[in-house]
Parts: sequence; structure tokens; C-alpha cells
Amino acid sequence: MTETTTSAGDDFLADFHHVATIGATPAGGVERQAATPEDALTREWFAHFASRRGWAVTTDRIGNMFASVEFTAGAPYVLLGSHLDSQPRGGRFDGAYGVIAALHATARIADRVRADGRTPQFNVAAVNWFNEEGGRFAPSIMGSSVFAGTMDEERMLDVTDADGVSVRDALAAIGYLGTDERPEVAGYAEIHIEQGRILEHEQIRIGAVDSSWYTQKLDVEVLGEQSHTGATAMADRHDALVAAARIVLMVEEVTAEFPPEALVSSVGQMTVEPNSPIVVPRRAHLVADLRSADPEIVLAARDRLRERIDAVACERDIRIDVRDFDVRDIQRYPEDGLELTEKVCADLGYSVRRMQTMAGHDSVPLNRIAPTVMLFVPSVDGVSHCEREFTEDADMVIGVDVLERIGWEMIHGALAHATS
Amino acid sequence: MTETTTSAGDDFLADFHHVATIGATPAGGVERQAATPEDALTREWFAHFASRRGWAVTTDRIGNMFASVEFTAGAPYVLLGSHLDSQPRGGRFDGAYGVIAALHATARIADRVRADGRTPQFNVAAVNWFNEEGGRFAPSIMGSSVFAGTMDEERMLDVTDADGVSVRDALAAIGYLGTDERPEVAGYAEIHIEQGRILEHEQIRIGAVDSSWYTQKLDVEVLGEQSHTGATAMADRHDALVAAARIVLMVEEVTAEFPPEALVSSVGQMTVEPNSPIVVPRRAHLVADLRSADPEIVLAARDRLRERIDAVACERDIRIDVRDFDVRDIQRYPEDGLELTEKVCADLGYSVRRMQTMAGHDSVPLNRIAPTVMLFVPSVDGVSHCEREFTEDADMVIGVDVLERIGWEMIHGALAHATS
Repeated sequence: MTETTTSAGDDFLADFHHVATIGATPAGGVERQAATPEDALTREWFAHFASRRGWAVTTDRIGNMFASVEFTAGAPYVLLGSHLDSQPRGGRFDGAYGVIAALHATARIADRVRADGRTPQFNVAAVNWFNEEGGRFAPSIMGSSVFAGTMDEERMLDVTDADGVSVRDALAAIGYLGTDERPEVAGYAEIHIEQGRILEHEQIRIGAVDSSWYTQKLDVEVLGEQSHTGATAMADRHDALVAAARIVLMVEEVTAEFPPEALVSSVGQMTVEPNSPIVVPRRAHLVADLRSADPEIVLAARDRLRERIDAVACERDIRIDVRDFDVRDIQRYPEDGLELTEKVCADLGYSVRRMQTMAGHDSVPLNRIAPTVMLFVPSVDGVSHCEREFTEDADMVIGVDVLERIGWEMIHGALAHATS
Repeated sequence: MTETTTSAGDDFLADFHHVATIGATPAGGVERQAATPEDALTREWFAHFASRRGWAVTTDRIGNMFASVEFTAGAPYVLLGSHLDSQPRGGRFDGAYGVIAALHATARIADRVRADGRTPQFNVAAVNWFNEEGGRFAPSIMGSSVFAGTMDEERMLDVTDADGVSVRDALAAIGYLGTDERPEVAGYAEIHIEQGRILEHEQIRIGAVDSSWYTQKLDVEVLGEQSHTGATAMADRHDALVAAARIVLMVEEVTAEFPPEALVSSVGQMTVEPNSPIVVPRRAHLVADLRSADPEIVLAARDRLRERIDAVACERDIRIDVRDFDVRDIQRYPEDGLELTEKVCADLGYSVRRMQTMAGHDSVPLNRIAPTVMLFVPSVDGVSHCEREFTEDADMVIGVDVLERIGWEMIHGALAHATS
């Protein structure tokens, strides 16, 4: 048994490290943003993994890919998955680990079903969700949210990137604007790197995610007046970038008004126009991100920021438009799934703890429509969304084992009565 | 005589308002950055104006265009000119006014020489200098600086824009990477909108520029660490954009440490990487611009900023590289040229005052190699480098008259013994 596990783990690792070469960056990361040629290469690898095993490969209208194994004709599917797209210069683990783990867990489950003889209650499929990262097309977690019905498909297909290319056209260009029916979902399980340092710090193998943080974004457009940097008196300027810089600092400073790390915030995106060295900027656009386990904290921070941004607009005689978007409520994952995870870990001899996720995941929208399990494995130094993101091989292999066992229990109805 | 002037003024205005339609923006500005298709269209208009009058049209290796009228074989040329390129969404007056004024002044001078019978000491040519604005290719004032020998031609041809396109390739693509010899220069005169509000405020028609401000830029590269906005603790972040925002504010704040308007400064250009809403920025690059009539003030501000930027780097445990570039010393225009301008204005009955230029102009490098006159006409509200830049027709027409008379005097040797 140990020998078999080791060999299966080696197979998984060989595939994981192969996929990490697709879109690889010199510093050990990957550049595979949604619906780019690099994204297409990982999709082809995903399809090939499934088709050479005789599984059905389908793509829906938002580019989600399903590799399905049918045990019981017409029965719903337990989905195992995550996403193969990456941030710009992202890490090689974020998302890809969960999809490759899902494929291997699915393969092992299929083997076990064949050996076992019993017919499971549900079928199983591995999923690659479209555009979880949202770096090219906002909002993030797009494919799984459309699948779950929490985002509108047509509106998301119309979303454009910075070059004006729509999701629809980008998916069509790589051949992944599908037309296939979506599988009926009986449950969902996802494994992902933690992207924090709790598991590493406590030397625990598996995180059982019990809830997601409350998050929201602020879209801030600063409209100043373009003028000559040399010839315009300081007193006559309405510099959009100076106002935007004030806002960037305010977004950071507001976190200090709450208990340490109770609120995390950032401005990750900012563009300046016309962005010429000798022109006072006309426009600055930025996106602020606020997250907390406590929705009240996010709402309080948001209110304070809006008030302070209004004050900057007034003081500088400049127009600033602020819009709330991508508000994601706190969500709890079902207790049955947490208990199942704890039982599986106990059986396999792996340590486990319950924890929250500060990051969004495809499991968040799935959790709205089906019993959902979200698992973490340790991240070295808690580093993520960058090229030095790292998780040890041994931790990844353990995660695949846990995912396989949870999937196995789920196709046999373990969470069939859980409330999502 | 009055009638002739009016009609000549109408011809000038018709051409000016025609050129303003090339690359016109809906809000009344123009978008004609250096070596773009729109820039090529204005160049073709320039060439056509000259060739239909039988003048020689030549282009040098950095894309400067000369429309030459030879009176005396082999004699050096008095150049009249400015630039047809614009800032992104720039105004329709900045640069274009000076080139169109130069063409019309040249045409009138040629007519007068023909009628006059005397052979002038020097020939005359109108010039369109390449890339004065520097919005696409930094540094600005590129073509005239290469002409004057203060910038290296090969290095400037290798400069690339944000998309990696070189000056050489961009000029070749529009057909203006020339091979023609440069004319020998006997003197230079340029007319430009003031871009400030002094003339308007004092109701004076013509500014005679006696000196240029001391200017320099700082190239600032902030190298933080990319990480996940949700999953990374605030204490673990090295956010390049937050550090850059601090620098943007410091660049503005330092002006308050000197007498009002003695120092003007700005950050006009900033780029963020990877610029994804849910990624803590890895890198921010910005360009700060410092200007003063007093070099000591710029140097003091620069020293203070470098010190404070180092403190930000230390405090945030982040790397910040700061580099001085594009340092332009204060320069005085020759006294003979100022006196000539005052005399011409007195003869024509126009008010005139001496003044400084806070902005850079093609006349600054030309002033290093030849007797140079720099003229201003009023700018409404002092607004420039933006679409609502405006100068009244009557003021433009007066400017052309003054430029014509100064050019006339210069080809007859008025400044031949001035020290540049």
C-alpha cells in the first residue's frame, strides 16, 4: 500500500512539475493569464490527461473545462477542481496544484471504483475553472461564479481586458469558447496552497477551510486636469496622480485603525493618463481591495475611506468617483465537510486544523450551490501570487491523498445531505 | 499695407486651423505623438507647403525637417521653427503654432527678398524639429538637441517607447528616417505659446525670453515584492506602490519648503507591475520633474528628495533606485536678440516684455550653437499640454508678424555678431 501511494505520488509530481514548465518564467514562476496561448497549452494538457484515459472532456460557454468519469448514467457529479490560469508573473502552485491534484484524485477514484465493484451514488469529474485570477479580466473567480449563477454569463463574456479584447473573443481565439452542457453538480472539493503561514508555523499538514473572509473592492477614478509640468504654477494644478497617491496611502493607513491583521487592504492596480514625464496627469484609476473575517470591519473601513476620498476631492478641487464592486459576503463551508476532512486526515494519520481563507477561491461560489469542501496545504513563508511561491513535494502528495479520499467518500454520498 | 497684413494673417490662420484637424480629439486637442501616423500627416502637410513654393525639403537622420530657401549660394541659414509633434491628448497650439508661423514668415521673407532686390547675408529655412514633447520617446527636445550636438544621435535612435519600438524604427516606419545633410546654421528664432499666464495677466502681446529655467528629472524605480492582496499579512508586505505613493507626495511637498512657485515639481509618469487588482505590486517606476529659475533650489530639492526616498526604502525594507537624468542648466538668450525683439515690437506697435521660460523648448539647445531668439504669445488661462490650451487668433497673427520681421533682420545679419 505504501509502495503504491509512493508511485502514485511520483506520477502526480511528474505531472505537476511538467505543467510548471508551461509559461515558465526565469525566476521559477509562471505567466499564464486567462485565455492566453499559455493558458491554452495547459488546457490541452488537461484534455490530453483525460482523453487518453477515455474520459469525456467538455467545455462550457465561459471556458470552464470538465473531465468526466461516469459510473452511474444520469447521476450528478462530484466535481474536484481549481484553476490553471495564473497571475502575471504568478507562482506555479496557485490553482494548478488543485487541478492536477483533482485529475490524479479522479483517476485513482476511477481505478478504485473499477476494483471495488460497488456502484457509487454520484459520478466524478475534474474541473479547470476559467479566470480565477482576474488579472487580465476583472472580476476574478469568473468561470466558477458563472457556473454557480452568481455572475451573469453574457455580461462576463462582454468583459474586456486592458487592450479592449473581450472574454468572448479571447476564449474563441484559443478555441475554448465551448458549447457543452454543464454537468449537474452533487458536491465540490478543492485543494489549494494556503498562501498564508499558519499551517507552516503550526506544522500542520492540512487546513480544513471553515469560512471565507468578507471582501470588497473600490473602483476609484480620479479626474484632474492635464497641464504642463514646467509651465503650470503649482497653485494652478489639479494633479490626478497626487490625489491618487493620497488615496493609496489612506487605503494602507486605515488598516492601523483596527486590531493588527484584522483588516488587510491594498491598491494592486493603478493607471495614470496621459503618463508622460512632462505632463501633469489628467486621470488616475485605481482599484482598492478590502478584506476581513468581520464584515463590520470592512464596512467601517470602506465608509471611512469614502469620506476621506471625498475630502481629498474637495481640498484639491478635483473630481473623484468611487464605486463599490465585487462585494463578497462571508461564507461558511458545511460542517459535514469539515468533519469528513477531519475523519479522512485522522484515518490517514495527517494533522489537520480548521481555518479561514483570506483569499477568494472557486469553492466560494460553488459552496452556494452544492456541499463544498475546501482544503489547504502549507505554503513556505506564506508567499503567494509571486514567483517564489513554494510548497514542498511531500505536502502536495499528502494533499492529493486527502482529496482522493474525500472525493471517494463524496461519490458514495458522504455529504449528500449536507446543507451548502 | 494693412490690407496685405490682414490677408496674410488670414492665410496663416486658415493653415493653422487646418493643421489642428490632423489627429484632432473630440475635446479640441490633438493626438500626434512623435513618429506616429498622425505625426506623418503633419509632416506631409509641411513638405507640401514648401514644395509647392519650390523650396527644398530635406530630412536629417533624426527626423528633423527643413524647408529651405536659398538666396545666397552656400551661405548659412537662419532657421525659424518649432515642432509639430504633440503630447498625448495635447493642445493644438503647442509647437504647431511655431512651425506654421515659421513657414508663413519664411514665405513672406522670400517674397520681400524678391521684391527688395538686395541679396541677404544668410538664407532662411523653416524647421520642424523631431520629438520635442518626449511623451513617447524620452528625453524630450530630442531632434533639436541632436542637431545642436548636445545629445548623441546613435543613442537617441536606439531609444525605445513603452512598446519597445525604437526611434529609428518608428521614423523608418513613417518614412522620415532621413539621410540629408543638415543646413549650416547662422541663427535661430522660435515663437511659441507662453503656457503661463504672465502675458495675459499683464495684457502684453509678445514675450521676449531672456533665460530658461534650470530643470532636472529623477528616474525612480521601486522594487518591492509581489504577493497576494488577500492572503498576505500587512506586516509581511513590501508594497512597491505604497512606497511610490509616498514619493509622489514628497515630490509635491518639497515645493512648499521654498518661496511660492520658486520650485515646480511633479510626477507625470508612473507604471505599476504586475498591475493586477489582487496582487501587491512588485515594481513601480516613476519620473519626477524639478524646475526652478534658481539652480540652487533644484539641487537642494533633489538632495532632500534623495534623502527622504532612501528613508522610505529603509523603513519599508524595499529597494529604491534613484537616477538623475535630463539635467538642463539655466541658459541666457543673447542680449542682442532681446534688443532686436524689443525694437521690432516697438516698430510694429506691439507691447513686449522680457520673461523666463519654465518649459523647455527647441530654442534651448539651438541657443548653444547659434544666436537665438525665443518669443512667446499669450496663453488663455496659462493652460497647456491639454486639450483646452488656447491662444486667440489675433495674438497668433501678431506673433507671425513679429517673427517675420525678426527673421528678416537676422538674414540681413542683425545678430551675426551676437554671442550665443
